[in-house]
Amino acid sequence: MSEIPLQDQLPEDHPARCCFGCGADNAQGLRIKSFFQDGTAICRFTPSSQHTAFPGVVNGGIIATLLDCHGIWTALGHDNRRNRPGEANPGTMYVTKRMEVDYHCPTPMDRELLLVGRVLAEGTRSMRVSVELYAGETLTASAGIVAVRAANGKP
Amino acid sequence: MSEIPLQDQLPEDHPARCCFGCGADNAQGLRIKSFFQDGTAICRFTPSSQHTAFPGVVNGGIIATLLDCHGIWTALGHDNRRNRPGEANPGTMYVTKRMEVDYHCPTPMDRELLLVGRVLAEGTRSMRVSVELYAGETLTASAGIVAVRAANGKP
Repeated sequence: MSEIPLQDQLPEDHPARCCFGCGADNAQGLRIKSFFQDGTAICRFTPSSQHTAFPGVVNGGIIATLLDCHGIWTALGHDNRRNRPGEANPGTMYVTKRMEVDYHCPTPMDRELLLVGRVLAEGTRSMRVSVELYAGETLTASAGIVAVRAANGKP
Repeated sequence: MSEIPLQDQLPEDHPARCCFGCGADNAQGLRIKSFFQDGTAICRFTPSSQHTAFPGVVNGGIIATLLDCHGIWTALGHDNRRNRPGEANPGTMYVTKRMEVDYHCPTPMDRELLLVGRVLAEGTRSMRVSVELYAGETLTASAGIVAVRAANGKP
């Protein structure tokens, strides 16, 4: 597994670097870091105090943001591995067309969470991606995402 | 239409007041304000600079947060009107069990956005809610939400 997160491999002037969920340059964002290997994308994230829904429970919108952005990086990691192996700085970007989120149980605030993304199906310009969110061994939320390839990193 | 937003009618010690999307007491959250009248819930929201996906475009996770929280307040507004007319401070809370988001086109950062929520169907403990997001006359995103009633404001 590369030690450089997918997000940090973007060129310094890439428009996605300001993304609230995954942009390395958004100081007030979640700044998630995703790693892709053997068909699976992994991200570990620890909520901050402002990410709450109720005391002790992570907000559903923050969860949706994590699932959405990590899903996009799952698609990108898959695309890069297949089409641009060895290139560190992908210029391709995917955007979300549809996302279905299931909230299975409350997601706790007080620990590191694990996101696991997989590409389920692939078309000529889009992918169907699944992302699961775990708190320890417990699946707390999951999403099915339709990710569409966009040219030049723009939606 | 009441001039007091639904969120601000919660008691001062209510656990939902810290919510990232709609909690009046979350200084780093979105602090949306929803109003319910004649079967429709309305919210106006202007994005801040950190809510971006790409330059000029609102992040999909922030959009999901807006749709989710306003959907919950649509359910609450409906529930309050039917079951507790005249009570200013509802103790009831709904939580999201499932959310399906469609992103129709990019949502611009540079203007006030409008959210419109409606209850489509109602069961004994849950509701099916639709929420639409508009930039001017353009529908940029929409969601179908299954909201479940939770006792004492806890999921």
